[in-house]
Amino acid sequence: MSEEIEAPPPQPGASLMLAWQVKEKHVLVVGAGDVGLSRIDHLLAANAKITVITGNDIHPRIEYYNKLGLLEQLICRDFQLSDLKLYESEGIRESVMGKCDGDDSLDPLNDEITKNIEKFEKEKFKMVLTCVNNYPLSLRIWYQCKKLGIDVNLADKPAYCDFYFGSIYRQGPLQIMISTNGNSPRLCNRIKNKMLAPLFDDLDLNKAVQNLSYLRSKLRNEIHPGDKTQIIKERMEWNKKITDHYTIKEWTKFELSSIDKIVSFYPNFPKIGDLVG
Amino acid sequence: MSEEIEAPPPQPGASLMLAWQVKEKHVLVVGAGDVGLSRIDHLLAANAKITVITGNDIHPRIEYYNKLGLLEQLICRDFQLSDLKLYESEGIRESVMGKCDGDDSLDPLNDEITKNIEKFEKEKFKMVLTCVNNYPLSLRIWYQCKKLGIDVNLADKPAYCDFYFGSIYRQGPLQIMISTNGNSPRLCNRIKNKMLAPLFDDLDLNKAVQNLSYLRSKLRNEIHPGDKTQIIKERMEWNKKITDHYTIKEWTKFELSSIDKIVSFYPNFPKIGDLVG
Repeated sequence: MSEEIEAPPPQPGASLMLAWQVKEKHVLVVGAGDVGLSRIDHLLAANAKITVITGNDIHPRIEYYNKLGLLEQLICRDFQLSDLKLYESEGIRESVMGKCDGDDSLDPLNDEITKNIEKFEKEKFKMVLTCVNNYPLSLRIWYQCKKLGIDVNLADKPAYCDFYFGSIYRQGPLQIMISTNGNSPRLCNRIKNKMLAPLFDDLDLNKAVQNLSYLRSKLRNEIHPGDKTQIIKERMEWNKKITDHYTIKEWTKFELSSIDKIVSFYPNFPKIGDLVG
Repeated sequence: MSEEIEAPPPQPGASLMLAWQVKEKHVLVVGAGDVGLSRIDHLLAANAKITVITGNDIHPRIEYYNKLGLLEQLICRDFQLSDLKLYESEGIRESVMGKCDGDDSLDPLNDEITKNIEKFEKEKFKMVLTCVNNYPLSLRIWYQCKKLGIDVNLADKPAYCDFYFGSIYRQGPLQIMISTNGNSPRLCNRIKNKMLAPLFDDLDLNKAVQNLSYLRSKLRNEIHPGDKTQIIKERMEWNKKITDHYTIKEWTKFELSSIDKIVSFYPNFPKIGDLVG
């Protein structure tokens, strides 16, 4: 036990890899060239509400996305600082962010206050991404975002980035991201194409995810429902064990009817043969 | 060309996978159990300044980290709301975040203002992670973080998470993160252990990253230096092609002396045989 506790701590020197949630949240992209397009592709995959502002040429594919109705707004004029609060209702920022002091009570907030905070969360930009060849402008945007409490990424200026992008291999909701903490983006791209794609392309991992997601919801809603800590723990334990009980390949092959059968064995673990017929 | 422009847009339903930068930034972890430990492990890998607050039992390994001096602070008492501004200088938040209105000029800010914003950025919590079995408390923290403009993750409450964690395979600065957008964390873990580890464990990818990072800095500082757009473009082009010119395995085998030789061929691409002797 003590050996486990005193095992070496994690080595520093990496990034904090995270799956960010921007679904239905506003994100601003300043600039509409190649880099802007790459950012927009990442954001579309994550269901963000994307606003693009550009005073320069627009990549034809970004125009095409706009024609398809995939962008919240495409604004063709020079950026201005007030754009950072584009969707914020008059006065909402001041009413939410102003005057936090003096109130150190942990009592729940009243409905009016919580509704207001939730509204603000939906209206404010969650992220700002600049992709323009104008460093003074980008830098000015960085400072303003910091004043406003908005996360920001200036393309090609790692010192002014709350986060970096990486190479991503994807199958539906399954994503695999490769990062070298900024050291070699090209190597990430090669690892994706030369190592991950050959390994995963022939596997329907999308289906494995669907099957396991269906299994979890069946378990929670029908087979072993309840909110008590003990029940949640039992569900988690069985879910962990049943996931490990079949190979990844088997999970990619099951139909939903097989999942129905698997959960019907709860709390046991059926063999593959038990699922036939 | 038009075909390329009108290719299908990215499918929605995924997360925004990002490599977050928290190096030397304050992060707060509320709670010190198993989940807290897992968060702290992620944060240590990313060089964050970690403060842990817990009124309950402490995982012995978190105590061990604290003994090693890896934590900024371990505070053993109940959480209070003012903890969210623990390291903020008196009045700095008001001076940075207050009164953004009326100033819509894109002129650079004066030194005093930029210094103040940078100081605030170093003092404020960049993230708050709650890992306690106390939903009302976690929720109260969520609302307060939103008021303060702080990103937040409540363990086990996906609706109150700006971001999710995933399974991560790591070799030094190289990280590979697997996410199913919350659908099956256990599958991520299996993919990591059963598919990625066997593929990568025998390759010294850490060394490949070091080699490619060294190559980039040699190129930038000695072989083809300069800040002009054309020169940057030439460097990027050659860097891309030389990365693809050798296999990933070859990159894991080179010594730094081979890299010196490779860059000496710039702008050509030496064959493996050219590097001998």
